[in-house]
Amino acid sequence: MSVRPVEGGVTAPQGFRAAGVAAGIKVKGLDLALVVSEPRASAAAVFTTNRAKAAPVLVSQRHLAESGGQAAALVVNSGCANACTGSDGLQHAEAMAASTAAAIGCAAADVLVASTGVIGVKLPMDRVAGGIRQAAAALATSGGANAARAIMTTDPFPKEASVEIMSATGSFRVGGMAKGSGMIEPNMATMLGFITTDAAVTPSLLQRALKAAADSTFNAISVDGECSTNDTVFALANGASGVTLHERDYSLLVEGLRLVCEPLAVGIVRGGEGATKLVTVRVTGATSDADARRAARAIANSPLVKTAIHGGDPNWGRLVAVAGRSGSDFVLEGAAVRIGPVELFSGGMPHDDLAPKAAEYLKGTDLTVAVDMGTGGSGTSQMWTCDLSAEYVRINAEYRT
Amino acid sequence: MSVRPVEGGVTAPQGFRAAGVAAGIKVKGLDLALVVSEPRASAAAVFTTNRAKAAPVLVSQRHLAESGGQAAALVVNSGCANACTGSDGLQHAEAMAASTAAAIGCAAADVLVASTGVIGVKLPMDRVAGGIRQAAAALATSGGANAARAIMTTDPFPKEASVEIMSATGSFRVGGMAKGSGMIEPNMATMLGFITTDAAVTPSLLQRALKAAADSTFNAISVDGECSTNDTVFALANGASGVTLHERDYSLLVEGLRLVCEPLAVGIVRGGEGATKLVTVRVTGATSDADARRAARAIANSPLVKTAIHGGDPNWGRLVAVAGRSGSDFVLEGAAVRIGPVELFSGGMPHDDLAPKAAEYLKGTDLTVAVDMGTGGSGTSQMWTCDLSAEYVRINAEYRT
Repeated sequence: MSVRPVEGGVTAPQGFRAAGVAAGIKVKGLDLALVVSEPRASAAAVFTTNRAKAAPVLVSQRHLAESGGQAAALVVNSGCANACTGSDGLQHAEAMAASTAAAIGCAAADVLVASTGVIGVKLPMDRVAGGIRQAAAALATSGGANAARAIMTTDPFPKEASVEIMSATGSFRVGGMAKGSGMIEPNMATMLGFITTDAAVTPSLLQRALKAAADSTFNAISVDGECSTNDTVFALANGASGVTLHERDYSLLVEGLRLVCEPLAVGIVRGGEGATKLVTVRVTGATSDADARRAARAIANSPLVKTAIHGGDPNWGRLVAVAGRSGSDFVLEGAAVRIGPVELFSGGMPHDDLAPKAAEYLKGTDLTVAVDMGTGGSGTSQMWTCDLSAEYVRINAEYRT
Repeated sequence: MSVRPVEGGVTAPQGFRAAGVAAGIKVKGLDLALVVSEPRASAAAVFTTNRAKAAPVLVSQRHLAESGGQAAALVVNSGCANACTGSDGLQHAEAMAASTAAAIGCAAADVLVASTGVIGVKLPMDRVAGGIRQAAAALATSGGANAARAIMTTDPFPKEASVEIMSATGSFRVGGMAKGSGMIEPNMATMLGFITTDAAVTPSLLQRALKAAADSTFNAISVDGECSTNDTVFALANGASGVTLHERDYSLLVEGLRLVCEPLAVGIVRGGEGATKLVTVRVTGATSDADARRAARAIANSPLVKTAIHGGDPNWGRLVAVAGRSGSDFVLEGAAVRIGPVELFSGGMPHDDLAPKAAEYLKGTDLTVAVDMGTGGSGTSQMWTCDLSAEYVRINAEYRT
């Protein structure tokens, strides 16, 4: 297998058209995205584990069940999350799907819906319906970029990725777009991801592969440890390339999805609220991968670690202490802490003479911190996080109204 | 049972003397505390669950085992945590106990040790030994206040509490002191608590009662969700009042300990790094108390909730979303959110017309937020937390050296 980057985001694969329009849901800017697949595609999804699920999540789950894992279109709005909106919210999410179905000529159950924005406010359905008609008229094979802009809330930049994969099985493309944390109006940092491919894949194989790819990408990032009411990743596979991926191509499919999901996920962290540094957290020497992941997650979410990195403080003591309290097996005498290339703690003792070198390294903006759990085990995990700045507090403490 | 507040902190109960001196471990100020019980007391302890335990924790655990749950003295230093200091650290913690034993005339195993301050730095043992001799000479029944000052790191104020309890069993006193979060030099926010009583209690009963009292007080607070290498609560019961508490008096004993632990715990939150508001989090309607506690802990640690409260934003949506992602059972349609007396969400719908009233309430500094999990269950929990301010980030991002 070889890989080359291509342009186009969600419309890089064949058979996908997209548009992003200004429907007037937000005060200004693009706020409604439409992605259409022809032919109809196999569809898979990973949803928020939050028990307070927003209406578009519930409606999309229902549509995936009704269609047997098929979809012809994705419709997404920003500016309003349609969450905590009661039975009206469910009707509105269904109406978004019905309007889309009418505009492009498919069944409503073949439309998947996502929303991001303010919680507890109802969708302005006149504007949404108008935006859908406008977007359907604007659909283009070059529409990925506008769609990626239309799903942004306070994201500082749009996030797109697309690759062509050449393998013994044949060549196919994977594209994607995402929006991340950056929602000061007002609520959770909703994460949305949309992946397209022109390989032919059964819904069940696509679902397993998407789950696997998301676990090491979208599920391995943390801005502030929150999980929103609306988090969703959709994948569509329409077979327009003529290449079919079978069970024996599972690894190839996962790798293809990962190649798009990883830069989107890292882009979400890089654009995190108030973030000034991207931090890769590596944990090794754990008794299992699950133990390593738990420790990596604790480190990635620790306000003490994130503020130290923000301040350029090579504070190995906080990394030891957080790894130790994570609930995973940890043996102090065997543990080690590295900040970039500098080992600051090992053999139960600090090496504080190296602190100035580590402080110099921390002046960078792309950083790695590594903790060996000291158990002698082979469990490893990697996560991405960002620093915690006063700007994060300012953004999130600002009064909504 | 009736209760009256008394003066004196750890020296309020009979048979306890204390001192706080400047040993020179910190650049300035009191930094070594000694508490001595005569007669020797039953002793109990609750230690950090962190797998990276500091030397004084390991040594105190060993002494409690060797003495069969007895202690004659507590020796505590601030300015240096004696954590991540290898085998030297263990020797130093043992030497602190031995010096104390020599100064007051008891066995080393009858001395419990605690330290708080910088991680990864060795104790200056000459100064510590000198401080112990100085403190032993200064022991006084009015020494509680100085001891409470000597255990502070960057705590903005000392934390003491003491009560007299009058019951059918007789009258006895409980006293205590604590230090909290506030350690910019540099590491974890170590929590130390020291409780004394002149009731006679067996070590095993004292241990069970201390654990129960700590669970609803010291273990129900959160400043930033961290748990340090040194966290410790000790309780000593010396029987000097002539009152003996038996198994049948268990509830009375727990209540007596709680009456001192709760104001100390709340004081720790009130003095949290950068804290401007004390927030009581109440969770009801959960399927179990454990589920309620998990949701309360998620809310108390959520940076999005804590920044909203800091900004005076009545953001019920964040409370719904965090309760929903906490892992505890949550039913959106039955859930309710109250900020102070104002119900902002119930029946699946927001009541945003009441938001200005809630915003007015949030201008206060002692606040309550309440979430009903909507399951119809009777599980409840209460925790205390503080807001998250830019000042917290500033304190913790400051470079140590």
